[in-house]
Order: sequence, then structure tokens, then C-alpha cells
Amino acid sequence: MGERRGLKGLQKQCSATMLLLHRAVVSAFRHACRFKSTSSKLCIQACSTNDSFQPQCPSLTFSGNNSSTRGWRVMGTLLGLGAVLAYHDHRCKAAQELPRIYTREEVRSHSSPETRIWVTLGSEVFDVTEFVDLHPGGPSKLMLAAGGPLEPFWALYAVHNQSHVREILAQYKIGELSPEDKAPSTLKTSDPYADDPIRHPALKVNSQRPFNAEPPPELLTENYITPNPIFFTRNHLPVPNLDPDTYRLHVEGPPGGQSLSLSLDDLYQFPKHEITVTLQCAGNRRSEMTQVKEVRGLEWSIGAISTARWAGARLCDVLAQAGHQLCETEAHVCFEGLDSDPTGTAYGASIPLARAMDPEAEVLLAYEMNGQPLPRDHGFPVRVVVPGVVGARHVKWLGKVSVASEESYSHWQRRDYKGFSPSVDWDTVDFDSAPSIQELPVQSAITEPKDGATVESGEVTIKGYAWSGGGRAVIRVDVSLDGGLTWQVAKLDGEEQCPRKAWAWRLWELQAPVPAGQKELNIVCKAIDDSYNVQPDTMAPIWNLRGVLSNAWHRIHVHVRANP
Amino acid sequence: MGERRGLKGLQKQCSATMLLLHRAVVSAFRHACRFKSTSSKLCIQACSTNDSFQPQCPSLTFSGNNSSTRGWRVMGTLLGLGAVLAYHDHRCKAAQELPRIYTREEVRSHSSPETRIWVTLGSEVFDVTEFVDLHPGGPSKLMLAAGGPLEPFWALYAVHNQSHVREILAQYKIGELSPEDKAPSTLKTSDPYADDPIRHPALKVNSQRPFNAEPPPELLTENYITPNPIFFTRNHLPVPNLDPDTYRLHVEGPPGGQSLSLSLDDLYQFPKHEITVTLQCAGNRRSEMTQVKEVRGLEWSIGAISTARWAGARLCDVLAQAGHQLCETEAHVCFEGLDSDPTGTAYGASIPLARAMDPEAEVLLAYEMNGQPLPRDHGFPVRVVVPGVVGARHVKWLGKVSVASEESYSHWQRRDYKGFSPSVDWDTVDFDSAPSIQELPVQSAITEPKDGATVESGEVTIKGYAWSGGGRAVIRVDVSLDGGLTWQVAKLDGEEQCPRKAWAWRLWELQAPVPAGQKELNIVCKAIDDSYNVQPDTMAPIWNLRGVLSNAWHRIHVHVRANP
Repeated sequence: MGERRGLKGLQKQCSATMLLLHRAVVSAFRHACRFKSTSSKLCIQACSTNDSFQPQCPSLTFSGNNSSTRGWRVMGTLLGLGAVLAYHDHRCKAAQELPRIYTREEVRSHSSPETRIWVTLGSEVFDVTEFVDLHPGGPSKLMLAAGGPLEPFWALYAVHNQSHVREILAQYKIGELSPEDKAPSTLKTSDPYADDPIRHPALKVNSQRPFNAEPPPELLTENYITPNPIFFTRNHLPVPNLDPDTYRLHVEGPPGGQSLSLSLDDLYQFPKHEITVTLQCAGNRRSEMTQVKEVRGLEWSIGAISTARWAGARLCDVLAQAGHQLCETEAHVCFEGLDSDPTGTAYGASIPLARAMDPEAEVLLAYEMNGQPLPRDHGFPVRVVVPGVVGARHVKWLGKVSVASEESYSHWQRRDYKGFSPSVDWDTVDFDSAPSIQELPVQSAITEPKDGATVESGEVTIKGYAWSGGGRAVIRVDVSLDGGLTWQVAKLDGEEQCPRKAWAWRLWELQAPVPAGQKELNIVCKAIDDSYNVQPDTMAPIWNLRGVLSNAWHRIHVHVRANP
Repeated sequence: MGERRGLKGLQKQCSATMLLLHRAVVSAFRHACRFKSTSSKLCIQACSTNDSFQPQCPSLTFSGNNSSTRGWRVMGTLLGLGAVLAYHDHRCKAAQELPRIYTREEVRSHSSPETRIWVTLGSEVFDVTEFVDLHPGGPSKLMLAAGGPLEPFWALYAVHNQSHVREILAQYKIGELSPEDKAPSTLKTSDPYADDPIRHPALKVNSQRPFNAEPPPELLTENYITPNPIFFTRNHLPVPNLDPDTYRLHVEGPPGGQSLSLSLDDLYQFPKHEITVTLQCAGNRRSEMTQVKEVRGLEWSIGAISTARWAGARLCDVLAQAGHQLCETEAHVCFEGLDSDPTGTAYGASIPLARAMDPEAEVLLAYEMNGQPLPRDHGFPVRVVVPGVVGARHVKWLGKVSVASEESYSHWQRRDYKGFSPSVDWDTVDFDSAPSIQELPVQSAITEPKDGATVESGEVTIKGYAWSGGGRAVIRVDVSLDGGLTWQVAKLDGEEQCPRKAWAWRLWELQAPVPAGQKELNIVCKAIDDSYNVQPDTMAPIWNLRGVLSNAWHRIHVHVRANP
């Protein structure tokens, strides 16, 4: 233990030194970029204890009166730090010559500032407690990896795969993983879910079996296109493991006509159509509705929504090849998945034939997601993508397509995914009395700051997403800092939308001054779509027993840091 | 004066007698229909003074213990009243032999219970004060005619044109109109609005010049199809007086193509297409938004919405004949009216070409409204009807149709009929920053009871309308009696809707028990459409400087009559 402590102490000393250098660099760099008119000081020191990280005296002081040259002076000073960094780098490397061995379980137990924050990269273990606040992407992003491997996150954000990032990380190394613990644990094969794919650790899991998970808010709107590994996953059954070579899609022909059995290669022969589409689960934001009164359903936060670039054959082309035409009477296209429960019942859903046959509705039999074959969790090898429509109709692991005069008889079409009055409970519900959800209503949510967070006084940056169903574009997002009394208009980011085909969300951002003296903010957002539909003010009047369609104003409460 | 008083006294005596007979008949008939289990009494008396209409002693008393036969006994009693009625009828007719002469102005001054309520039919004048409460259609309907002619209302409700109705009315005759006052007054010809048509007196006029008026709530939802004379009217300019024989519709061809000049007969050659469509002004319910904060615009109540059966040529057929095709780039169809201001500027608006060319969108060049040629106020001889879209695009007195790469440059397309954040005022508004309103959001309102009315304890009947833009069907209307804390589902009436083409409103009704002991009710309604969009809870967060898109929950407050 003594040796371990000594080693750790040395490492920590190195880390602490590097931390302070780092902190100074970051702070100085911020100064360089800002050119604030107040006199500024750059303070770098070497600190000899673990217990105090407060700068006590400036070992390198920068002060200037000419604000126009101040930034350049800071930059110059920073370049001068190279030698210092190299020296400490050398000392720390020396300290790592006798690596300490840890198990994955030990690493997992270090996931908070109180227990210290450890991560792994390959077989190496790092204590990044002191780096968290310095993480250029923000502390919360790094915390997602706390107690586990960095790789899944570095895979998402390629910026990490650079030598200088690895060099910074090396300062924090505290040991190695035990050899038998380097491969992820294998799953038991008796479990029907044993063959489910490995998931990204950043996903917030609402249910393991079937797997249902959402990206955390701080990652959700980092990218206009959601990276595949953190795209929200809504499975109803175990994930089938399908062989692309033997995969066939059965497309039933019209009465008297011929059915098709399409291989993947057959599907590739149809014109490839590529569109950006946001998918949202009907239960997105259910956890807020639960606060009104209990509902049945997974406790989705605001992340059961994601956006991808999908490519595949247009359903209308495939249906036309099978001999289907638009008929005068209302008809439906029924989809069946290749996922099934122990009784052999497959997931199923349907959409109106009119939508399926409309080239402008762009319904896809998608085989690509963000330029890759579909991940297994998202329907490999083929899923339906129905732009502007609730996720439940985007049937994954698609096995069969047919046309019928009635909606799909699937449980998920007829006995789920419908909206009801708040007065309807499980004793009185008549599922036939409500239409199945197809197009979704206008929606938006705040992803930054987090509910309950503390924000700086001065200015607050608020970010989020907004989307509406049916191809209706979001035309405005209003944000309030006072619970809805007064509003400001957010800036919409993201791709321009085609009229009537606004299938993808808009990300938005508002930088707003924090009213002086304010100790807390009740931040609210609401979106307006191009039919000028708006989100309702409150959740109780739209409460429903399944907790779907939860699209009232999103409200968060944050504290404002008191000025020193 | 003495003779007049004497005559009137005699007439009133007759009226009073008839009134009480009537009241008894109505009350007994209600009893006959209800079969309430409490003991019931039928009381008919002849009363000899004007001052007291309280039944003092029963001259004909009905009482029964066997509730299953009570109704039939009442009916039998009623039949026995025939002779009494005939006798009084004779006495009243005798009293009318020396008719008193009144001017229209005198009649107009009798329009409330305080001044007594007079109406005219043809040249006859009636004092119906005592009949108002007995009016089978309800007192409020009859009050719409107070101080004026009955004909416009009888024309709406053909049930009045029966001899027994005329006989009842005859009892209330008090005189004749002066001969020079029998024709409506003529308008001055120097006025640009002098040639405007005569309007139905039931219309609640928000502006005379240009003429803007809405039907009163009690008539609005009497019929699923709004009768032409009380269809809400939204004019921006004087009504042109167009000769159907020389009328021509100019349809500009595509570049290099040929333009069309279509007579009415030419339009009739296109396939005639007929659809039921609800039109709503963007400013409907503005008066509620005004209560939040002042806006610019006409003070529309809940009646700037009406429904008609429209027939005409499909715009897509006419555009196709002119050689237009759907193009890849976004284009717009611009409409110009033949109404114009003193500078010659015509009313104009546009819709996207994609909508115009879509046969399923059913955009019409309408020449018929409810089986009649368009009334002048509604665009005679031809107007545009754009199902699911704000009224402002349904250009009346249509003169010109053209296709352009940009929206119409009309004031009403670019500098009006747009929605903004509540934070935007006339100093900061940038009209180019918001899209022109096309599809409208989901809407509903309560037409019965009226705000501020007193309802009976026991049970309350609540009626109203609900509609959504873009062909989205209303799937549910929730009604609350407690300001939105609890909800009940209303019964939807009206025609079944085609999926995706629900162009017309649904009327709805709820009969709900009044909670015992309740002295007042805060009645609220909200509609949900098939994209599960809902109306927002409150008006302030959707307030906008033009007072458009006012679709928060409709709220009324009524008093409950105390039990005796």
C-alpha cells in the first residue's frame, strides 16, 4: 500500500503540476481570445502538495495596458511553456515505469469527484479528476465516460485522435487494466437478449431487455446529425441477427398479382434515395408527464429523438414494382419486422397507402444510416423510414410489406401509440375510439443548461432542438427566462428545409443576458411550426394514460452563481 | 294617445292570454317528453291585467301519480286547448281592425325588454316581448331580430314559413309600418361603398367600410353548412359589381406559352368539383387576444369562421390547360382580385404552386356557394377556395391568376397575415422574418352557452365548433367545467371526413351534469387534430402584434341559476 501511495503521490504531483499549467493555458487562451478591457493577469505556478490547487503566487505574471496587443503577448507567453511541459512530461513518464494493475470493477467504482474519476483507454487506466474541469468539450461530456472506457466517446468525436490529446492524457495515467479484464465481459447465451449488440456506454438506458436508451442531453444536440452509436434506440423485442446474404424482403402483390422476394442486392437496384430525417418516439419526454400522474411506459427523458441521413429504396417504387396502385378507398401498407416474441409474434405497424405511394412523402426502405449499413439496433439490414411520422411506424428488421384495407392488426398499431383525453383511465379506455398516432405534433426541448444546473451570472447560453411532424418546418423557437412571462426568439441552426418536407429537426441557441440580481431562472422553450401550431403551455391537460405525445413547453430551473 | 293605449291594452291582453296558454303548452309538452318522477301540475289561466303574469290559481290542473301514463294525459289536455286558442284568436283579430302606424325608426327603438321588443314582417309590426321566452328556437335567436324585420331570419330557418307560426305571430300584432317606410333606405351614391350589397341584419358588424361581419354565436353552429346570408364576411375594399356576361378570368401562361382569358361559360366547361370547406379568418377570436394587450385589427369574436359547400373548376385543371407544370424549384400561384382601392391597387395573395397543382389539395376556382351563384360579398362571380388554408388566400372577385418564383408582392401576403413572437412590437417587427400564414392551427370555440349567461342547475348543454388547417381532421374535443382541471369528451357531429382532406369543421356538443352546489362554471374547450396538435392553454404566450392565430383554449364563465 505504501509503495502504491508513494507512486500515486508522485503521479498526482505530476498531474497537479500539469493541471495547473493546463488551467493557466486555458485561462490565458480565453483571455487572448476575449481582449477584455479590464487589466488581466496570467499566473502559472508549480505546486508541491496535493491539497492545495489555489494559485498562491505568480511565477509568471502577465499584465498589459494596451488591449490591442495583449492577446498576442499571451500567445507568445504560452509558446514559452513548451519546455516546462516537456520537463514535467519526462518526470511523469518516469513515474509510470512500475504500472499498478486494476480490474474493470475497480475502475467502475471511480466515477465521481468524491471517489475520483478514472477512465481507461486500451489497457491503460487514468485518473482524470483534475482534468475534468479543463476538458475543452465541457466537464459534463467527460463525465459520461467516468468509470469506463474512453474509446466509445473518442469514436464519436474524432478530434480526440491526435497525438497532443494522447500526450495530455498520459499525464494522468495511474496504471494498467489486469490482462484478464481487457476484453468486455461476454453475455450469457441462454438469454433471448444474449445476442443483442454491444451498446455505446453514453446511452442512458431506460430498459435493458428489450433495449431502450437515449443519448444524454449534453450529447443530443452536439451534432445536427446524431452519430449512429448514440442514436436513441427503441426496441420492443430482442434484436434479430440477420444474415445479409440470405435476407429477403417479402412484398405481397395486389390480388391476382405477383409477390416479390427481394434480396439486398435487389433493393440496391432501385434508385437510391437519401434524406435527412428526425425520428422521435411517441414517448419522448414521458418522464415529465409522469410528474403529473403515473403512466405506463418507459421513462424517456428528452432524448427519445435523433436525426440521421437515411438512404434506401423509395417504398413507392417497390410497391409500384409489385403492381400496387393508389386506390380510391382508404388502404394501408402493413409492415412486419423479423423481431419476434417467444410466441412468434413479430413487431408490426402500418401507414396509409396514400402516404406510402406519394413520392413527395419520401417513405424509404432504408439500408443505410449516416453512410453506413444500418447498425443492428436500428434495423439491419432494412428498416422503414416514414418521414414526419412517429417512430413506431419505422419498422426495423423489415421482413414483410403488404397492402390491406385495414390498419395493421398489430398490438402496437391498435392497442398502443394512441392519444386519449386526460379523463380516460385504464378502466375506461377504448383503444378503437382514437386514431393511431401517425404525424406527431410540434415539439422542442432544452438540452443546455441541464435542469438544476448552476449557470454563470452575466450571460447564459441556452441550446436545444425543435421539430414538427408531417414535414412541417419549425419557423420559430421562443425562449423565456421567467417561466413564460416574457420571450426571446432563439437562433435556428441546422440545414435549410424543403417546403412541406421539413423532415429533420432544427437545433437552436439563444445567448441571453441574465437579469442582474437574479438568483435563479425558470427557462422555458416552445416551438412554432409552419402551420403556426404551438406547443401547449402545460402537461396536465394533455396527460394520457400511456404518456405519449408529451409536448408541452419544456421547462428547466437553474441557479445563477452569485457574483464574488 | 288614449285611444292608442286602449288599443294596445286590449292587444296586450290578448297577447298575455296567448302567452300564458303558450307557456303552459310548452311547459306541459316538456313534461310530456320528460316523464319526471316528481308530481307535476299543468296550470292554465286567463289573466285580466298586464301587470301580473304569475299564475294565481289553476284553471286547468293536471296531476298524476302514474308516471308511465302522465305524458299521454298531458298530450290529451293540450289537444283540448284548441277551442280556447280559437276564441282568443278571434278576440285579438277584432282588436287589430284599426291598425296603428309606426315608422321603422320607432320599431328600431324597441329592441330590449325595457323598451319592449318589436319586430316587423312585411308591413306589419309586432310586439313580441312576451313571446321571446317561449320562442322554440330559444330567446336569443329571436332577440337577433329585435327592432327590425323577421324576413332575413325566416329566410334562414324555413320552419317559420308555416301557417301556424304566422297565426301565433298574429296575436302579437300592434300595427303597420308607415307606407313610405316599407322599402329599406337607399344608400348614397357618392360613397365608394354605396354599391355594396344589402347585408343580413343578424350579422355582427365589425366594420362597415370595408364590410366585415360575423354571424352571432347562437346562429353559427345552428347548421353544419352556414347559410350564405350569415357566412362571415371579410372584405378589404368595396365590393365590385361585376357583370357575369363580360367577366373574364385572366390566366397567365408559362414563359413562352399562351395566356387564357376565361369567361364564366369557359370555366363551366372544366369538370365541376364540389367540396365542403370551412373558411376561417386569421383574425378569428382576436377580441380575446386584445384582452391580453392591444393589437391592430378588427375585433372579431368567435364567428370569423363559416362552412359552405363550394363548387367550381379545380385550379390544377385550369393551370394545366394554361400549360403550367409542377417545377422542381419552389414557385407560387398569385391571385389578384377585381376589388381595388382608389389608387387602383387590387387585393392579392398567393399560395405555393405545389398546393395549387395537387389534385388532392382540391384548390377551387369556385362559382357556386351552397348551390347558388356566389353572393356578391363572397366573390361573385368567381373566388379562390384553398381548403385548409387561411381565408386571406381565398381571393374573391378573382381577376387574374399567374405563376411566379416568388410569393405575391401584395401587402396582404408580405406585410400582413403573419405570426410573430409576443416580444415583437411595431418598432421591431420584421415582416420578412416570418412566413406568410397558409395552413392554420387547430381551433375550437364554445357557441352555447354565451359568456356571462345563466344556466340551469342540473344539466348544462355546451355546443361549439372545432377545425384544423391543412386537411387535418379534428379527432377529439375536450371540455372542462372547472377551468381546465378536469375534462370530458364532447360528441362530434357533422359530416365524416376524408383522411387528409378534412376541410370542414366538426360541430360538437356535451351534455354534462352541473356539479351540485356550483354557483358558476368556468367552461373551457380545446380541440385535438389528427396530428395530435392541441390548442395552447393561454393567450398571452401566443399574443402577436396583429392579433392573428388566436387559438388558445376558449373560455367562458357562466352563472348557475340557484335552485328555488
